Amino acid sequence: MREIAWYNGKLTTLEEARISPDDRAFYFGDGIYDVVTVRKGICFALEDHLDRFFTNAERLRLNMPMTKDEVRGVCDDLISKLDRDIEEAALYFQASRATAPRNHAFPENAKANLYFTLKPSKFKKIGMEISAIFEKDIRFLMCDIKTLNLLPNVLAQQKALEAGCYEVIFHRGERVTEGSHSCICMLKDGVFCTPPTDEMILPSITRKHYLQICEKLGIPTRIAPFTRDELLQADEIIVMSTTALMCRCIKINGNSVGGRDGENLRRIADAYRARILRETEGK
Amino acid sequence: MREIAWYNGKLTTLEEARISPDDRAFYFGDGIYDVVTVRKGICFALEDHLDRFFTNAERLRLNMPMTKDEVRGVCDDLISKLDRDIEEAALYFQASRATAPRNHAFPENAKANLYFTLKPSKFKKIGMEISAIFEKDIRFLMCDIKTLNLLPNVLAQQKALEAGCYEVIFHRGERVTEGSHSCICMLKDGVFCTPPTDEMILPSITRKHYLQICEKLGIPTRIAPFTRDELLQADEIIVMSTTALMCRCIKINGNSVGGRDGENLRRIADAYRARILRETEGK
Repeated sequence: MREIAWYNGKLTTLEEARISPDDRAFYFGDGIYDVVTVRKGICFALEDHLDRFFTNAERLRLNMPMTKDEVRGVCDDLISKLDRDIEEAALYFQASRATAPRNHAFPENAKANLYFTLKPSKFKKIGMEISAIFEKDIRFLMCDIKTLNLLPNVLAQQKALEAGCYEVIFHRGERVTEGSHSCICMLKDGVFCTPPTDEMILPSITRKHYLQICEKLGIPTRIAPFTRDELLQADEIIVMSTTALMCRCIKINGNSVGGRDGENLRRIADAYRARILRETEGK
Repeated sequence: MREIAWYNGKLTTLEEARISPDDRAFYFGDGIYDVVTVRKGICFALEDHLDRFFTNAERLRLNMPMTKDEVRGVCDDLISKLDRDIEEAALYFQASRATAPRNHAFPENAKANLYFTLKPSKFKKIGMEISAIFEKDIRFLMCDIKTLNLLPNVLAQQKALEAGCYEVIFHRGERVTEGSHSCICMLKDGVFCTPPTDEMILPSITRKHYLQICEKLGIPTRIAPFTRDELLQADEIIVMSTTALMCRCIKINGNSVGGRDGENLRRIADAYRARILRETEGK
């Protein structure tokens, strides 16, 4: 198959997939999701994503119908059904609280719905140069959970595109938080700087890998909030996500930024590339 | 029929209704909704709700597939199909941006999906006494739009129920905003006090009616933010929504509140009841 959907055990094409509108994702966004990249039939960092998915499920008190092992089994099964010639694919998985008549409170005996999709996806080239715009962060204070309440992200991403940019850089007051679908980090004086992951910022798995890679490379790291001004003065601004591991931000609001520490950027990029190759070809 | 669902022109029972998971309500909550009460086959304040629905659609730049008149036509049509013996019903309508492969940005040539449900619903008795708890308002700063991003509301409502209460009263710092699915107002020294509807508060249609009714009754009104302390000192605390027009809050966090201006409360209640009877029986 070239595109696969799976909903509570039923496998279809994405086009044929159908759900009940009483799935609470539809009324409330009452659920969570995660995305994994698949390369040559092997998931990259699946354990990290499954851990986050199940942590988030617990935080929202979702009653998961499957264990982590069983979800991993579904992932493997879906990947085995994907056409062999598809080199890169994205595996999306979502859990919503229940299917039940619309009512804010949790339904009794709620059992979560699980939904997966798997389809070809071209990942962004590591080191791709991008532009961004600043945007006021008006999102809720639950951004550390990867929920289905993504309307502000949708509107912000659209705004970026209409400004001819790849991403927005959200800020609360002067503090930079994250992008609409990315984590924002920077290199300054040879130090990899990333904000702490509090209720305003998703614990990005890519960010976690950067911290590990920097440690191995001997690049010092700093986990602390930073401001818009500090970002504008950074040597390099890195915009990262699961499907775009390293974007080099070279313009914000039309002004040139970063571009002053290509060496460290390249070292991190090379190490990340090596890690992916190792994990998705070594098996 | 006793329960009706309607999705992009297709009429089914609620149980039979099926949608594509690519409806962006499902992934992002990228849409809006509204709810109207129906009594003896007649909608109460339908124009107000349609106006709000279309205003919200415009604010999110949804490309609506129908005019307001056509949506009103669907409402009428669905109500005509409801079993005659159903005295009270709730008409829910929702618009989501499009059905399209998952991607944050607006799909090209997006056309909104429309979804309606109509089912029996017992409205809360006017004057019902309720308890509430205070809860920190962590929602996004788009609460003036009735969107499908309702996860914090869901979690707060659940918290209220588990505390044996009907509702939460959200606050940002000391300022009271609204409930998880209600508007919070108060009577103090004979004045009807309601917060302004900024980005933290939905322009409640019931609140609008209260302001009109108070004007007719000669009860002075004040539109200004108020604090938790001011609420605790109120003569009456009114928790209102489309399906629960007047709840009298008599307890917050376990402490007795309000209950000191039954006369004005009754005057407003009587006037509201008369208005509903006039509008739903006068035709």
